[in-house]
Amino acid sequence: MRAIVLLSGGLDSAVTLLIAKKEYNFSIIALTFDYGQRHKVEIENAKKLAQKYSAEKHIILKLPLTEIGGSALTDVNIEVPEGKVERNEIPVTYVPARNLIFLSYATAIAEVNDISDIFIGVNFIDYSGYPDCRPEFIKSFENTINVGTKAGVEGNKFKIHTPLIKMTKKDIILKGKELGLDFNLTHSCYNPDKNGNPCGKCDSCILRIKGFKEAGLEPIL
Amino acid sequence: MRAIVLLSGGLDSAVTLLIAKKEYNFSIIALTFDYGQRHKVEIENAKKLAQKYSAEKHIILKLPLTEIGGSALTDVNIEVPEGKVERNEIPVTYVPARNLIFLSYATAIAEVNDISDIFIGVNFIDYSGYPDCRPEFIKSFENTINVGTKAGVEGNKFKIHTPLIKMTKKDIILKGKELGLDFNLTHSCYNPDKNGNPCGKCDSCILRIKGFKEAGLEPIL
Repeated sequence: MRAIVLLSGGLDSAVTLLIAKKEYNFSIIALTFDYGQRHKVEIENAKKLAQKYSAEKHIILKLPLTEIGGSALTDVNIEVPEGKVERNEIPVTYVPARNLIFLSYATAIAEVNDISDIFIGVNFIDYSGYPDCRPEFIKSFENTINVGTKAGVEGNKFKIHTPLIKMTKKDIILKGKELGLDFNLTHSCYNPDKNGNPCGKCDSCILRIKGFKEAGLEPIL
Repeated sequence: MRAIVLLSGGLDSAVTLLIAKKEYNFSIIALTFDYGQRHKVEIENAKKLAQKYSAEKHIILKLPLTEIGGSALTDVNIEVPEGKVERNEIPVTYVPARNLIFLSYATAIAEVNDISDIFIGVNFIDYSGYPDCRPEFIKSFENTINVGTKAGVEGNKFKIHTPLIKMTKKDIILKGKELGLDFNLTHSCYNPDKNGNPCGKCDSCILRIKGFKEAGLEPIL
């Protein structure tokens, strides 16, 4: 059985890939998006991860999100904030409708290839306040594709798997370790330098460092 | 107030644009997708329509749907059928998750621009059997974006308007006539020749001809 795994090249999606492969025993179709993200280096990480963990296929799609803008990740005119992660508002690194667009493409590919299972590494606990990482969104999206596609209407129901959704960053890192993830192949930083080195200061770096520390491990950025 | 109108360049989306503009009094942001469709000439029609009916802005996004395939409209290896329209199965011109992907981009653009209203000319009656034209899909999608976006979560609720959803092709044509639509600027054919001339034989041409005849008008292809 095959499953589609949204693979950004980050820590969460890498752990999700290993869960789909090793715990669910799916053959993996990895799906990565080149959407003009500031941290484009993560696409190279996605390629390495797909290869290292023997994805059956790795699809990389180029999406026109920079033409839409509205996020520090896709608009060079909006700065990525540094410092303490605030949890009381949705940050400027939120990319409007990103997971909606990503999951829509995953649905199209799943439907064309007779695949019912889609994995996404969204996370509700140590997330950066993104509404499209919440269980309500995932559940409603799953319903939408089951009433709005040929496969869904004909009874071949889609399932969106979110194995990390209730895990802390610490738990995710421990799960990755348990499944043998090479953390060096994963990238989390929103604002790497021109050589792809992480800044250590953005939300995503801070969460990653904190997670490693809580897991009792030396942080690997 | 501004609204986004999905404008394919076809008859239905053109009538939808005029309804949004003349009946709802919205200023129009027209949104067209270049997704490798066989009937690419419709994009030229969309440009003419956006100009003629004074859209405030016309956004054209290039999407990688041919890389996904699975439809006669995006895969040159699948033929567009000719002849009588059958209503008992979903035809090969169905593009997997197309309206889902289109509406996801519309949502992103709406969110970035503080727009709550999105118009799409889907049609439940004289439609070609596409599941993503059904009211259940639209309703579920609307819920999904209201729980899965920053705008939705913060209370600026999105509304997906489907003014044609229960209209017959005849009704749509009569509405277009009432609102002063220049039908010559619209394109419906799935399989035009290399000069962009309609075939007169595909599902979409047949429905269009039938609609004009039922409206008591000379068909304009």
